Amino acid sequence: MFPYKTTLKIDKNSKEPIYLQLANQFIILMSEGKLTPGTKLTSSRALADLLKIHRKTVVACYEELLLQGWVESIPKKGTFVNTNLPIIQQLDFTSKINNTLKQKAGFIFYKNDRFPIKDTNRKEGVIYLNDGTSDTRLTPTNEIARIYRRIASKKTIYKYLDYTSTYGNTQLRETLAEYLNTSRGLKITKENILITRGSQMGMWLSSQLLIQPDDIIVVGETNYSSADITFIHQNAQIKRITVDNNGLVVNEIEELCKKQRIKAVYTTSHHHHPSTVTLSAERRIHLLNLAQKYNFAIIEDDYDYDFNYNHAPILPLASHDSNGNVIYIGSICKTVAPVFRIGYLIATEDFVTEASKLRGFVDRQGDALLELTFSEFIKSGDLDRHIRKIIKVYQQRRDLFCKLLNEELKDYFEFEIPKGGMAVWLQLNKKYSWKDVTIEAKKHLLEIGDWKRYDLANLNHNAIRVGFASYNETEIIALIQKLKTTLNTIKKAHD
Amino acid sequence: MFPYKTTLKIDKNSKEPIYLQLANQFIILMSEGKLTPGTKLTSSRALADLLKIHRKTVVACYEELLLQGWVESIPKKGTFVNTNLPIIQQLDFTSKINNTLKQKAGFIFYKNDRFPIKDTNRKEGVIYLNDGTSDTRLTPTNEIARIYRRIASKKTIYKYLDYTSTYGNTQLRETLAEYLNTSRGLKITKENILITRGSQMGMWLSSQLLIQPDDIIVVGETNYSSADITFIHQNAQIKRITVDNNGLVVNEIEELCKKQRIKAVYTTSHHHHPSTVTLSAERRIHLLNLAQKYNFAIIEDDYDYDFNYNHAPILPLASHDSNGNVIYIGSICKTVAPVFRIGYLIATEDFVTEASKLRGFVDRQGDALLELTFSEFIKSGDLDRHIRKIIKVYQQRRDLFCKLLNEELKDYFEFEIPKGGMAVWLQLNKKYSWKDVTIEAKKHLLEIGDWKRYDLANLNHNAIRVGFASYNETEIIALIQKLKTTLNTIKKAHD
Repeated sequence: MFPYKTTLKIDKNSKEPIYLQLANQFIILMSEGKLTPGTKLTSSRALADLLKIHRKTVVACYEELLLQGWVESIPKKGTFVNTNLPIIQQLDFTSKINNTLKQKAGFIFYKNDRFPIKDTNRKEGVIYLNDGTSDTRLTPTNEIARIYRRIASKKTIYKYLDYTSTYGNTQLRETLAEYLNTSRGLKITKENILITRGSQMGMWLSSQLLIQPDDIIVVGETNYSSADITFIHQNAQIKRITVDNNGLVVNEIEELCKKQRIKAVYTTSHHHHPSTVTLSAERRIHLLNLAQKYNFAIIEDDYDYDFNYNHAPILPLASHDSNGNVIYIGSICKTVAPVFRIGYLIATEDFVTEASKLRGFVDRQGDALLELTFSEFIKSGDLDRHIRKIIKVYQQRRDLFCKLLNEELKDYFEFEIPKGGMAVWLQLNKKYSWKDVTIEAKKHLLEIGDWKRYDLANLNHNAIRVGFASYNETEIIALIQKLKTTLNTIKKAHD
Repeated sequence: MFPYKTTLKIDKNSKEPIYLQLANQFIILMSEGKLTPGTKLTSSRALADLLKIHRKTVVACYEELLLQGWVESIPKKGTFVNTNLPIIQQLDFTSKINNTLKQKAGFIFYKNDRFPIKDTNRKEGVIYLNDGTSDTRLTPTNEIARIYRRIASKKTIYKYLDYTSTYGNTQLRETLAEYLNTSRGLKITKENILITRGSQMGMWLSSQLLIQPDDIIVVGETNYSSADITFIHQNAQIKRITVDNNGLVVNEIEELCKKQRIKAVYTTSHHHHPSTVTLSAERRIHLLNLAQKYNFAIIEDDYDYDFNYNHAPILPLASHDSNGNVIYIGSICKTVAPVFRIGYLIATEDFVTEASKLRGFVDRQGDALLELTFSEFIKSGDLDRHIRKIIKVYQQRRDLFCKLLNEELKDYFEFEIPKGGMAVWLQLNKKYSWKDVTIEAKKHLLEIGDWKRYDLANLNHNAIRVGFASYNETEIIALIQKLKTTLNTIKKAHD
């Protein structure tokens, strides 16, 4: 007889009913061929005796197996493993040793080597460089969660919990239209807004709608690497143009347009990513005129609009766009915290509608509870108050960071004090390389990260982007000290 | 002189400082060519007098314009509109009439006519059919929001607010691995899990990784339309096979495999979408064996695993997958509420890693606060308690719905009582058409919706899928009455 007693395990503490525990073990035995088709199962009475359980439990188990089609019941003869049941071929025995899923897929799929792994496993005591993220310790999480809970406990909230518009929550779209019209000189209504889950989703959707293989997209020779990879994933043909102290050299775009049809220009006009320069007024208008003349899209990624220290924010290209050429992308991820996945894509109604339709197949819809929460957070003035508060903190951090860079690391770096944003474009003296710095810094518990992504066109500018906003005073001092120790060590080895 | 006084408007109640209000209006005047390059701006003193504001405000405004590059300051001569400034061409004057953004984009983009618009604008008093959604009035929103707020107010929460792993929150991945191993017989660790925002995202990511143009994907002749559209969007070649009372006819897949290389089979094995039948045990094993032999992927979309009324849930294909062929997709959207965008994609580690990398470019990452909330909701047993509670309610609703269908509408419909799930596959007598029913039903405040999506292969089966779980007793009675009135009216017109 099959060794039922030693094979079948019962866990009386499990939440799963015993009949089901048994049934599932039988199914595995049958599907793996340990109980072969045609095998007669021992009688319910005998099995109950063996396992010291109630006979009814075994009967329930056999009925379950019958219902699921694993066994056949032949009257007066008993219960048999279904004779039509093929056996699962154990092609890979190694996978059975620890009884877990194989590590390698049993089918072919397409990999994209440009996609980096983003699985952050942070160690205490290590300082990690970033390219300009906010300090989440300053996030008003408590206030936001309070609003969230208040909204969630409203009696009529069930109306917002269902499958809903792929455009995003109507209230947030209305609130944002008003907020952006007032603060950024846009001229939009809610029909021009799709609520996304941050800027990256705006980029993903736009790129799916704009690019078919070999369509041309223009970017800076230095460029935000995630945008670059997104376009390349769509098989775009990337054309890189010069970026100088006034941003993208728009004349080069005009020259391109005379020769070829371009689909889109990607720009971080406010503070060029990564080099932090601002696109000049003259070039802004020139770019808009070119877009009108040559019918291309401008993807304007205004990722850190809120952070300006020396003057008011510069109005986006979108505020001058009377011809519907600009796809304006932004989010509150940098301003509040990345965890709150609320962003927006702003464009003409036809484009917004198509992007919303596409979005329905990417992740179906946004999170209406969170969207309602942020509608209130913005409307109440809480967002503006939060911005006013942190802008002061970040300005102090920028000043300290740049002062220490000058005082302690003058021999190694050149940089301009950024007028806005959360990062410095740090040019390393060409005597040294970021590769060496990265290796040495690790020894001093400083993680530089992927420095190669700042030089997509292999210009050897030897610069990377270093965020300052997320570190407090103590951390900035420690960061500078670690950099100094690192570079002094490298210098000594050099000399 | 330029009519400054009538053109420039000051809103003293605005949150925007007056100097900035003025600067932004100047920028618009300059960019639209109403103040042309080279024009001398009136002196700060004169403008201050005209507008009855402090001179310092005007000076701040002019400095802002200077900083942004809109004007030039020539010592002892005054402030002039920058001569290098091109004027924005007003190609489209109509858009200026109401001063809003154009409706049509000024560039070309790719539309997909198969994407339906999902913008739900629901009217009171109308009953909307759905294809099996839950009743959000039963969602424990309050409990969930309480957990959310408790988690959000922890002192160490700031660590979870930043840019983070694209795999999803580690705690939820661990909780889910244990939960699914226990409840669904899987044999996985957290490395096999990517947290998605619902099943659709799992489908989107899988389809991007599996399909390149003309790759073959096998689906049922009746199929979940969103899956269908997702695959077609990736330019897959769709092969449709027969679905009978035991689900997909797997023999047909074997025949296909002998002739052609197939990339994947999509299956809703538990309850076939839309026709609600269950894939038999025999065919399950056959399908797994074929996948092993021919190296294709099985996308198993287990969208309503939790809802079984007559017997225990059937273990998914994934629980028998020892060779890494199954991509198992599920979510809590049907079980708790669609607003909580928590789902999972389960596969071998290599596939999960690639999907996570891709996900970083779709929407960067999930919502860690919500993921932590659901980790706790599952771990505490709250999810299981919720399922036990609603399963009773839904069973009563199924019974009432089917009883009334039989009693009131026997002449018009044929159907099987579904053993699980939240919908009935309702076959209309071929004397009538869903087109006519949809038009007539509208008059009785009953919205049938897009009935065509249930017959993607044009089989003329004359059936649609009708959900029962989201309606209470009163609503079910009203729904049946509306259907009856509708069909009686059509019948009379027929006779």
